[in-house]
Amino acid sequence: MAKPDVFNVDCPSQGILQLIGSKWSMLVLCALRTGPRRTGELKRRLDGVSAKMLTQTLRELERHGIVEREDFAEVPPRVEYRLSALGRSLASLVVEIEQWVTTHYTRMTGSVRRYDAA
Amino acid sequence: MAKPDVFNVDCPSQGILQLIGSKWSMLVLCALRTGPRRTGELKRRLDGVSAKMLTQTLRELERHGIVEREDFAEVPPRVEYRLSALGRSLASLVVEIEQWVTTHYTRMTGSVRRYDAA
Repeated sequence: MAKPDVFNVDCPSQGILQLIGSKWSMLVLCALRTGPRRTGELKRRLDGVSAKMLTQTLRELERHGIVEREDFAEVPPRVEYRLSALGRSLASLVVEIEQWVTTHYTRMTGSVRRYDAA
Repeated sequence: MAKPDVFNVDCPSQGILQLIGSKWSMLVLCALRTGPRRTGELKRRLDGVSAKMLTQTLRELERHGIVEREDFAEVPPRVEYRLSALGRSLASLVVEIEQWVTTHYTRMTGSVRRYDAA
């Protein structure tokens, strides 16, 4: 198999990069880093996410082997999501991006203000 | 100022996370890591990007102080983009994500195949 090339629009690896970089994927990865979460907990943690978008994000992450879904087959339904080993290795990188944003936030908003005023 | 919270949909830091995570932003950051690039070079490197999307991505990254734009005021026009110091610190994290995708690509496409066949 040819080496994956994220710069090639025809290589599925570019789609994977897009999935991982999506805001909701990154927030799910950060949220699951401290342990398994039920769907409702994730919905509350990811303030503003629609049920549809959350379901779709979790499904794609599960499909790629990044998160694992466990259905406890209880009534009322209890479904939990957790990071796979693969997902944990990714989450540690994504958390660095999240922390980078938090650390440099003031500098970036200052830059935006100056840019917009120019 | 309150601490930025990427989980809060009303905090501009979530928009910054979204900007950084966009496929084209990540590819621009990877492409600029080896040095300044002219607009046309970036257009060719980011196979499949539209001129409009590339311009918009570069403008937002410049606006946030992540890339710097230099117009050499030549005829024909010569415009170069480079990473700022801030951008270099971000690019080193983004490159790790890109390398993670490449490293685990086969495993993820295998997972997708199994998921879709189930």
